[in-house]
Amino acid sequence: DFPNAPAWPRLPGMETLLAQIAAALRARKQTLATAESCTGGLVGAALTSLPGSSAWYLGGVVAYANDLKLRLLGVAPELLAARGAVSLETATAMAAGARAATGADFAVSVTGIAGPAGGTKEKPVGLAYIGVAAPHGTAAFRHRFSGSRAEIRNAAAEAALRHLLAAIEA
Amino acid sequence: DFPNAPAWPRLPGMETLLAQIAAALRARKQTLATAESCTGGLVGAALTSLPGSSAWYLGGVVAYANDLKLRLLGVAPELLAARGAVSLETATAMAAGARAATGADFAVSVTGIAGPAGGTKEKPVGLAYIGVAAPHGTAAFRHRFSGSRAEIRNAAAEAALRHLLAAIEA
Repeated sequence: DFPNAPAWPRLPGMETLLAQIAAALRARKQTLATAESCTGGLVGAALTSLPGSSAWYLGGVVAYANDLKLRLLGVAPELLAARGAVSLETATAMAAGARAATGADFAVSVTGIAGPAGGTKEKPVGLAYIGVAAPHGTAAFRHRFSGSRAEIRNAAAEAALRHLLAAIEA
Repeated sequence: DFPNAPAWPRLPGMETLLAQIAAALRARKQTLATAESCTGGLVGAALTSLPGSSAWYLGGVVAYANDLKLRLLGVAPELLAARGAVSLETATAMAAGARAATGADFAVSVTGIAGPAGGTKEKPVGLAYIGVAAPHGTAAFRHRFSGSRAEIRNAAAEAALRHLLAAIEA
C-alpha cells in the first residue's frame, strides 16, 4: 500500500458531486479554474479524474507558498500581511485571482491548516476557508475540520466542490 | 467508496520516493515547483501529503488547457502549434516556465494523453512526457503507459517523481 495516498472520503455523494459539477458546467458552456493551498492539487486531481474534463476545467494554480499567492494569483501583499494566508479575505482573493489569471467563468480556492504542525490558538489545525469567484460575484466560507492531515485535506477538497456547485447553480 | 478516487499505485517504492525527494531538497535547502497537465494536480497532491512539505514545495500550475500553458507557464504559442501539447519540447518548456514563474530551484512537468478519448495514431492514449528543469539544465523524457485513465495518470505522476529525484541527486 501507499501510506501517503490521498485517503479520499468514502462519502456516497462524492462521485455524484463531481458529476453534477461537470453536468452543470457543460450545460452552461462555462469553465472552471482552481487555486489550491493546503489541498496541494487534490481538487484539480478530483476534477480531472473525470474523462472529458478538459471541456470545462482549464486548470489553475497550486499556491502552497505565500509568495505564489502574490506572484501567480495577484493576492495583495498588504492583505496577506494583515489577514494571513488562512483567512476569508485571502480565500476570496485567491479565487478572484485564479478567475482573472485563467479567464475561467468560475474559480474555487482552498486555504487552510492541514497540520499536524502550524496551528495556533486563533488559527487551529483544521481551519480552512473556501473561496468562490463567479460571474455574479465572489464569496468565501469558513470551515473547521477534524482528523488527520489526510482527512482534513480531503474534507477541505470536498467542501470546495460543494461550494462550487452551489455557486454554479445559483 | 469513491469510484473516482485516484487509485494510487501500490508500489513499494512510492512512500520511499516521496521521502527521498523531501530529504534531498531539505539537505540542499532547495525548492520545488510543479507544472501538471494530464495529472491535473496529482503530483502536487502527493508531494503535499507529506507534513512539512511547505519547507521545500512552493506550488505550481495546473495547465490543463493549452491556453494556460501559454498564460501561466510562458510556453511559446509557436512551439505549442508546431510540436503539440504532448511533446518533449512542451514538457521541457512547461518545466522551465514553472521554474521561472515560481523562482524554485527545481521544477517538474507532466503532459500526456490519459484517455480514454483523445488518442491518435501518432500520439496514442498513454503517451506522456516528463520535463525537469534544474539549476544545471533541463531535460525531458518520453513514456508510454497502459491501463485505465487512473492508472495512466498515476504512472505518469510516479514517473515525474522518479525523474525529479534523479535530477536533484545529479
